Amino acid sequence: MIGIQTVDILQHKRDGIELSAEEIEAFVQGYTLGRIPDYQASALAMAVVLRGMTTEETTALTTAMLRSGVTMSWPSPPGPLIDKHSTGGVGDKTSLVAAPIAAACGLFIPMIAGRGLGHTGGTLDKMGAIPGLRLRMSLDEVQQTVRRGGLAIVGPTEEIAPADRRLFALRDVTATVDSVPLIAASILSKKLAEGIDGLVLDVKFGDGAFMGDIHSAHSLAQTMIAVARGLGCRAHAVLTDMSQPLGFAVGNSLEVAESIETLKGRGPRDVESLSLELAARMIWMGGVTESLELARVRARSALTSGAALQRFQSVIDAQGGDPRVCDDLRRLPQASQQLVIHAPREGRLLSIACRQIGRTAMRLGAGRRVIEDRIDPGAGVVLHKKAGDLVMEGEPLLSAYGHDEGLLADCRDALEAAVEIAREGPALQPLIRGVVGDDDAFAEGT
Amino acid sequence: MIGIQTVDILQHKRDGIELSAEEIEAFVQGYTLGRIPDYQASALAMAVVLRGMTTEETTALTTAMLRSGVTMSWPSPPGPLIDKHSTGGVGDKTSLVAAPIAAACGLFIPMIAGRGLGHTGGTLDKMGAIPGLRLRMSLDEVQQTVRRGGLAIVGPTEEIAPADRRLFALRDVTATVDSVPLIAASILSKKLAEGIDGLVLDVKFGDGAFMGDIHSAHSLAQTMIAVARGLGCRAHAVLTDMSQPLGFAVGNSLEVAESIETLKGRGPRDVESLSLELAARMIWMGGVTESLELARVRARSALTSGAALQRFQSVIDAQGGDPRVCDDLRRLPQASQQLVIHAPREGRLLSIACRQIGRTAMRLGAGRRVIEDRIDPGAGVVLHKKAGDLVMEGEPLLSAYGHDEGLLADCRDALEAAVEIAREGPALQPLIRGVVGDDDAFAEGT
Repeated sequence: MIGIQTVDILQHKRDGIELSAEEIEAFVQGYTLGRIPDYQASALAMAVVLRGMTTEETTALTTAMLRSGVTMSWPSPPGPLIDKHSTGGVGDKTSLVAAPIAAACGLFIPMIAGRGLGHTGGTLDKMGAIPGLRLRMSLDEVQQTVRRGGLAIVGPTEEIAPADRRLFALRDVTATVDSVPLIAASILSKKLAEGIDGLVLDVKFGDGAFMGDIHSAHSLAQTMIAVARGLGCRAHAVLTDMSQPLGFAVGNSLEVAESIETLKGRGPRDVESLSLELAARMIWMGGVTESLELARVRARSALTSGAALQRFQSVIDAQGGDPRVCDDLRRLPQASQQLVIHAPREGRLLSIACRQIGRTAMRLGAGRRVIEDRIDPGAGVVLHKKAGDLVMEGEPLLSAYGHDEGLLADCRDALEAAVEIAREGPALQPLIRGVVGDDDAFAEGT
Repeated sequence: MIGIQTVDILQHKRDGIELSAEEIEAFVQGYTLGRIPDYQASALAMAVVLRGMTTEETTALTTAMLRSGVTMSWPSPPGPLIDKHSTGGVGDKTSLVAAPIAAACGLFIPMIAGRGLGHTGGTLDKMGAIPGLRLRMSLDEVQQTVRRGGLAIVGPTEEIAPADRRLFALRDVTATVDSVPLIAASILSKKLAEGIDGLVLDVKFGDGAFMGDIHSAHSLAQTMIAVARGLGCRAHAVLTDMSQPLGFAVGNSLEVAESIETLKGRGPRDVESLSLELAARMIWMGGVTESLELARVRARSALTSGAALQRFQSVIDAQGGDPRVCDDLRRLPQASQQLVIHAPREGRLLSIACRQIGRTAMRLGAGRRVIEDRIDPGAGVVLHKKAGDLVMEGEPLLSAYGHDEGLLADCRDALEAAVEIAREGPALQPLIRGVVGDDDAFAEGT
């Protein structure tokens, strides 16, 4: 009977018939229990990629994946429980900056973060670069840590959305990653397991993101907002441009260093401004301030006062990491080898091939090609110039870091090809290109 | 590297990019060798269902599946090597009639037949109802038998298109059966392994067939003809109506009996006429006669002279079966229980729900719901009336046969619901509704 029902579900999705919540629940439950094999799940995933899902189906899928595991409950919440999530981009370290700011302003953030895969990094891998820091904590420990210090940044335990974990690994090897409903359900089934009241989404688009253009980013944002709200979680999204890396550093240890610099008020302008905006939106969503404008003031003040840095330092301490890294960046893992790429001629930096930089960093050890790959925390790429900057002939454009001199040399061509110098620079675009759901309108620009 | 390439292939098909012959060959080879897991094959199959395949892709898929196993070679052919294939329908026993006729007219037919699945029967299961008959023969034995008697009807050996066998089982449980290129490649990879010169296709459509309407049947016929010809095998197709069962008998032993009656010139008109037409087309294709008209004369003469029956009897003998079944039908397996459905009122028989009859016969043991099900050779359904016939109140409409009285009783409702009696009968349509490829034109009617 089970087999026949499963084929019927596949057939419905194949033929473009909307699946019922019961069908989706039965499928996810069967898959989690191992009664439905991978080959049926991958066929369904492919049908979903090509046929799509309605908001109702995506909500049912999210719910079913959420229910496949446990969720945190907060019977006496310590305050507003708000998280942020980025769909991933090259050099995106805003979680490490925005979360401490928001926690310093009175939010409680039980952040279950993900590992990086492909050309984008993951918050968890960045935190993992901090010596001694524990990424695995029980949900009880997470809750205690959050009650005490307002913030924990940890990996998902086995109990969190096991259906998603299995499906995520399968999607990666069956070309079924690129699907708005599957991406939305995967993200939200993990985030909603935190038991949060609200979620600020940073949906990235462009060469260095998973979504190629603003329209698909908008579509993903809308879906995630609708699903999250349907499940009782406030949500809105910013749509941000990922056509060049965020900040200068790409790679785990390098990005932690840049985050700490940003928390000290010395970070790259784009990292600082996006982190502040995301933190402000979290603060506003949590009801700490009456307006977004006031939340922006609060966020900036937490940054300039050093309160946010202090909060980050105590999070590191609470998770068993070495808090002295905040005072001495050399305590972070360092690569032994360096390769510098110099400008072949004078001009303006027209573009930096973002995905190419991400892929090269991954190749050097900063990320994973497949889930089993090991991370080299010191590896990565640092830009010395960004799009629009003037460069002189022979000036350093970027540096690559790793432990393998031969591998670094192999990456030279890709790195040289990633940077384009021209007479005229690009028309610079604002980083935040749209907001979805903060007044239920799609506002271009902020 | 293998993994990455496989995902690229999936991604191409997902995005509607035509696959190269190399990609298809690599996929099929990897799948056959077990290097590509089922979950990638099912995802590809679903993408093919939804994205389709060009004739070039289907040809490459057929070739790759053919090459995954061995093919018969005929260095000194005994004569024209021609086969027929039906895409399957309820009560379709034409192979058991047409093949002996064609063999009696000088053709050589190494028929590798399939088992039934779902509501349609399979030639192999029908032959299997004959006591003692061997369905498993080595390819050498098949060739010797065909050289001696012109005909063998056997099951595929393990060496024939193993990629297809694995994929076929997978498609069945992943809702990826309904796909013209996948059906075409599956059929042709097995048929072309016979090393034949030509193939007459009977592509069925309507309630009792896999193809729902004449347009999809036409599309399947065109694809199969193009692929077969591209691989050096003559081919054309007839498109036949499967809106009511062919003949009166549905079920293995019952259909063998009806086939023998047809070979004796006492069969139902539809079975006889379609079998003669298919045999004539095989004879014409084999170059035995100069025209199709002359081939029709030859076919009829082989039937009326008893030469075809004699040929069938010697095939049974050559394959170890009891040839006396031809003289005494009671030597075929019989069901112990019978249920008769009577006409609830007078009128004309408007329609017989063909798929319903096929499903009920399957439920009684005549077919398989899943590949592991065991066949009861005596089980099935016999119609006493066909669409258009006048019926009197209380007259028997159909009889069901099985070994389980309770199960028979359970089938009563389905059987009663399958027959519709009205004041006016249906406008009777010709059985053969189109021919594809005999003059490269799609002629409606014959």
